[in-house]
Amino acid sequence: MTYRATTDDFQFLLDHVIGYNQLPETELFEDATPDVAMAVLTEAGKMCEDILAPLNRNGDLTPAKLENGVVRTSPGFADGYKAIAEGGWIGMAADPEYGGMGLPLTLQTAVNDMMSASCLSLQLCPLMTQGQIEALEHHASDTLKDLYLPKLISGEWAGTMNLTEPQAGSDVGALSTKAEDNGDGTYAITGQKIFISWGDNDITDNVCHLVLARLPDGAPGTKGISLFLVPKLIPDADGNPGEPNSLRVVSLEHKMGLHGSPTAVMSFEGAKGWLVGEPHKGMAAMFTMMNNARMGVGVQGYGVGERAYQEALAYAMERKQGRSPLGDAGTGTIIDFADVRRMLTQMRAELFAARSMALSLALAIDMARATGDDDWTARAALLTPIVKAYGTEVGILVSQLGVQVHGGMGYIEETGAAQHSRDVRVTAIYEGTNGIQAMDLVGRKLMDGGEAAFRLLDEIESQAEAARAEFPNMTEAVWSAAEDLRETTEWMVEQSDMQDRFAGAVPFLMGFARVLGAHYHLRAAIAEGGKGPRSALARFHINRLLPEHTAQFAQARAGAAGLYALSPEDLAS
Amino acid sequence: MTYRATTDDFQFLLDHVIGYNQLPETELFEDATPDVAMAVLTEAGKMCEDILAPLNRNGDLTPAKLENGVVRTSPGFADGYKAIAEGGWIGMAADPEYGGMGLPLTLQTAVNDMMSASCLSLQLCPLMTQGQIEALEHHASDTLKDLYLPKLISGEWAGTMNLTEPQAGSDVGALSTKAEDNGDGTYAITGQKIFISWGDNDITDNVCHLVLARLPDGAPGTKGISLFLVPKLIPDADGNPGEPNSLRVVSLEHKMGLHGSPTAVMSFEGAKGWLVGEPHKGMAAMFTMMNNARMGVGVQGYGVGERAYQEALAYAMERKQGRSPLGDAGTGTIIDFADVRRMLTQMRAELFAARSMALSLALAIDMARATGDDDWTARAALLTPIVKAYGTEVGILVSQLGVQVHGGMGYIEETGAAQHSRDVRVTAIYEGTNGIQAMDLVGRKLMDGGEAAFRLLDEIESQAEAARAEFPNMTEAVWSAAEDLRETTEWMVEQSDMQDRFAGAVPFLMGFARVLGAHYHLRAAIAEGGKGPRSALARFHINRLLPEHTAQFAQARAGAAGLYALSPEDLAS
Repeated sequence: MTYRATTDDFQFLLDHVIGYNQLPETELFEDATPDVAMAVLTEAGKMCEDILAPLNRNGDLTPAKLENGVVRTSPGFADGYKAIAEGGWIGMAADPEYGGMGLPLTLQTAVNDMMSASCLSLQLCPLMTQGQIEALEHHASDTLKDLYLPKLISGEWAGTMNLTEPQAGSDVGALSTKAEDNGDGTYAITGQKIFISWGDNDITDNVCHLVLARLPDGAPGTKGISLFLVPKLIPDADGNPGEPNSLRVVSLEHKMGLHGSPTAVMSFEGAKGWLVGEPHKGMAAMFTMMNNARMGVGVQGYGVGERAYQEALAYAMERKQGRSPLGDAGTGTIIDFADVRRMLTQMRAELFAARSMALSLALAIDMARATGDDDWTARAALLTPIVKAYGTEVGILVSQLGVQVHGGMGYIEETGAAQHSRDVRVTAIYEGTNGIQAMDLVGRKLMDGGEAAFRLLDEIESQAEAARAEFPNMTEAVWSAAEDLRETTEWMVEQSDMQDRFAGAVPFLMGFARVLGAHYHLRAAIAEGGKGPRSALARFHINRLLPEHTAQFAQARAGAAGLYALSPEDLAS
Repeated sequence: MTYRATTDDFQFLLDHVIGYNQLPETELFEDATPDVAMAVLTEAGKMCEDILAPLNRNGDLTPAKLENGVVRTSPGFADGYKAIAEGGWIGMAADPEYGGMGLPLTLQTAVNDMMSASCLSLQLCPLMTQGQIEALEHHASDTLKDLYLPKLISGEWAGTMNLTEPQAGSDVGALSTKAEDNGDGTYAITGQKIFISWGDNDITDNVCHLVLARLPDGAPGTKGISLFLVPKLIPDADGNPGEPNSLRVVSLEHKMGLHGSPTAVMSFEGAKGWLVGEPHKGMAAMFTMMNNARMGVGVQGYGVGERAYQEALAYAMERKQGRSPLGDAGTGTIIDFADVRRMLTQMRAELFAARSMALSLALAIDMARATGDDDWTARAALLTPIVKAYGTEVGILVSQLGVQVHGGMGYIEETGAAQHSRDVRVTAIYEGTNGIQAMDLVGRKLMDGGEAAFRLLDEIESQAEAARAEFPNMTEAVWSAAEDLRETTEWMVEQSDMQDRFAGAVPFLMGFARVLGAHYHLRAAIAEGGKGPRSALARFHINRLLPEHTAQFAQARAGAAGLYALSPEDLAS
C-alpha cells in the first residue's frame, strides 16, 4: 500500500507529449523552465510518497466526524495538510502578489495527480481552496483579495464551494438560498446547502465558504444568482479570525467512500457574507471556479487509478499461484498469466491517455492565459468535459481492474484495492455528473460549429500522416479513427434537435477520448522511435482499445427516437 | 428500497424465449407444467418481496460477527432463512426421495434470481447448500445421503464449500489440508481454509462442510485431492447433531460488501470427516458442485442488478430537476433526460440478456438430465462460463449505472444504490474469477473443436434468417455479428498455443455474450411481432450495444505476442 511518485512519467510527458517547452517561451512563465518544473515535481512527489500516502487508510477507517457541531478530521490529516500548505502546493499556481508561486497550472495538475493518488480525501480540501483562490483572483474586490487570498494561498484558511441544495443539484438555478443587503456592504445569507466537501475542519484557522444565493431582486433561474464569500469566523480589523458567523454544520453524510473528507449539510442562518463580483452574475464567477475544478476532478480520478495500478502491479509480481505459462522465462508470479497481464496493461494504457489529456488541457489553459490566443481558450473549453469524464471513468475502471487483479484479496478491505474503488466512485458524480459533462461537450462546446474539435482533429491527422512511412499500421488506425470522429462530430453539429445530440452524448465523449488517447500514445511511440515500452503500450492501446470507437460512435449517432421508444411505463412494467 | 418480483418477465421468458415447454414434455419434468411453474414463481416472489427484501440493509449495517467462536448473523436473517427453508426453496430442485420438490433447475434459477435481488448476503447461504445437496446426490454413499440430504434439503442444516487456502486459490491443486484414515470409516482432517462463505451461523442446527483435502497417498496437484463431508456437530446414532467436531472459525473477513454473509477463516484440527466419492477423485465431485454454483453466481450478479435497476428507475421517476426536455409530454422528472433514459434502458437490456442466457443454461442442464442427450450437456458446458462471467459483469455494470442515475444521492449509503454495487462486486471474483471463466471457455469448452459453439451459432443464424423479411435491419445485424463470432471462434480453435487464446479470452467471452444477448432480444421482438416495448428494447440492444462485438473480437484475436511485449519491469518503470 505504498505509492511511488510518477515523476519519470511527467518528465516524458512534458518533454515529448504535451509540448511543455511552449510555456517557458512565454513571458508569463519564462521562469518555469523544464528543469524548474522537474525540481518542483520531484519535491512534491517526495511529500506525497512520505507524508500523504501513509494517511490514506486512516481516512477510510476513521472517518471525519461531527462532535458538538465541530468537524474532527481523521488521524494524521492535520499533519498531512500542514505539509501541503507549508510546501506551498495549495497556492503553487496562484498570484505571487498574494504569496502564490505563479507556476503554470500544468505543474499544479501534476502535483494534484500525485496528491490524489496519495490521499484523495485530504487532497479534496486544497483542491476546493485552489478553486476558491481562482474565483477570488478573477472576480473579488481588491479589499476581499487583500484580506483572503494570502490566507487561502498559505493554507491558513481553507475554501469551500456551496452550490447544491436538496432540490437544486444539476439544476443550480433552482436554488432557494436568500441573500439580503445588510446596508453596510455585507449581506445576510440564509438557506441550506448539501454535499459541501470539507464544509468544516479542525485543521485550518478559518473556513471560507463561497455561497450561491439569490438577492431579493434576482430573477428566477441561474440569471438571478449571486456569489458570496461567507467566512466561518468573521475576520477582525487586523484580518484575524474573529467572532463566529451564523452558520453551522448540520450533519455529515455516510458515504460509500472518501470517508476522510467531511461532506456536510450546511445551514446559513443570516450569516454575514460579502458579494464576489457583480450582483446576479454569480454563475459566471462560479464557472471560473468550476471549470478548473472539473479538470481537477478528472485528475483525481486517474490519480487514484495510478495508485490502484501500482498496488495491483506489486501484488501481481509477488503473488504466486499455479505453474507459470511462461515456464522458466516467467517470473513465477501471476503477472505471467495472460489475463492478468492484459488487465495491468490496459490500466497503464488508460492512465497514460488520461494523464496526457489532462496535462494538455492544463497547458492549453496556461497558454491561453499567457498568450491571450483564442484558439488556446477554445481548446481548453473543448477538453474540459472530456478530461473530467474520461479521467474519472479511467479512475473507476482502473480501480475496478485493480480489485480484480487482487482476486479474493481485492474484496477484503485490508488490501486497500477496495477503498480506491469506493473513493474514486464519486468523481464521476460531483462537479457535474459525467452525463452533464457530455451534454456540455455536444452542446455548448460544439456551439462553434465544431471548429475547435476540427482543429484538434487536423492535428491528430497531421501527426498520423507525418509518421505514416515509419508506422504504417498504427498511423492508419489512428487516422481512420480520427476520420470517424470527424464524421460523428459533423453529425452532432448538424442535429438541430438537441435531444438527438444528448441521446449519444456520453458514448460520443468516450469515443472522443479513445481517439485522443490513441493520438497521445502514437506521439509517445514516435518520440521513442517505435521501439521500447511506450511503443508497445501504444500498440496495445491502438490495436486492442481504440477499436471500441466504432461502437461508441455508432451509439453516438443513434439519435433520440429509439431511446424514447420505451416509455417510463414500459421500463417499469 | 423495495423490490418487485419479476414474475411477468419470467412468464414471457418461459413462454417465448427459452423454450420452457420442452421440459414438461419429458418424463422427468412432466409435472412442471407452465401453470405449475408460474404458481411456484409467484409464491417465491411474494416471499422475496415481503420477507427477504426488507432485510437487505440490515446485513450491511450490522454485519455478521464472531463472538466467542460463534458467528452471530445479522438482525432478521434467522427469520428470512426460516421463510426460505419452510417454503421449500432450498431443496426445490432436489430429489423428492429425500424431501426435495424435484422441480427443474430452470425454476430454481428464477427463484435464486429473486432471492439474490432481495438479499444477496442471505441468499448465499442456501446457494451453498444447494451445491452441497447436488454434490452429495451425485457422489455420496447411500448412508451419507440418508443422513444428510433430508436435513440439508429441509434447511435444518446448512452446507458450505471449503476449497481455498492462503496459497491455493485459483490453483486448487496447491492445497495442503491433510486427511488421514482413522481406521473406522472416518478421516481426520487437518488444515486451514479461507474465504469460506457462511462458514458458520447461529440459524441452522448444524453446518456441514465439504472439504477438499489430500490423503497421505494422494498425488501432488489436483489429481491427489479427495472430498470429505465434515459436520460442525457430529450426528449421533439418531442423526441428530451431537458432539462438536474439531473445527472452528478463526476469524471473519472485513469485506467491501456482502457484510451480512460471514466469510470465515476455518481451522480443521483433526476434524472427523467422511469421504464423498472415491479417494483422489475429489475434484470431479467438487466440479459437480462448482458448475452449478458458477451458474448460481452469474444469477446472483444480474439478480442484484435487477434490484439496482428497479430502485434507479423509481428514483428517476420521482426526482425532479430542471425543465423537462420533453415539455408537457414528459413526466417532469429526470427520466425525461436522454442520458438518464439511456442508462436505464441499457440496464434493462443487459438484464434481459443475462436472464435469458442463464435460464437457457438452466434449461439445458435440465434437458440433459431429462433426456441424456449429449448436445444438451455440451450446450450447458459451453454456457456455464458465459453466464457466470457475463451475469456478474452485468450485475456490476448495472449497479454502477444505478449509482450514477441517483447522482449525488447514489454515493450516500442510506440510498442503497451504493450497497448493491459493493455487494455484487465479489461475484466477478468468487467461484472462479471471470478471467478463469474465460480461460475455461476458450480452453476446455472449445476442446470439441468448437462444435457446441457452432451449433449454437447455427441456431442464431437460422432464427435471424427466418425473420429476415419481417425485420431486415435487426436480423442482418444479428446474423453478421454471429458470423464474426463464428470466425473468431474458428480463430480460437486454430490457435495451438493456448497463450494466444488466453490473451483474448475475456474480450471473447464478453463478445460472445453480446451476440447471444442480441439473439434473445431478437427472439423477444419476433414473439412480440416487432411492435411493443420488448421490440423497442431489442432495437436498443442491437443498434446501440451489439456493435461493441467488433472491438471485443478484434481484441480477442490480437494474440499473446503484443501483450507480452511489455515486460513486468516495463510495467513497473
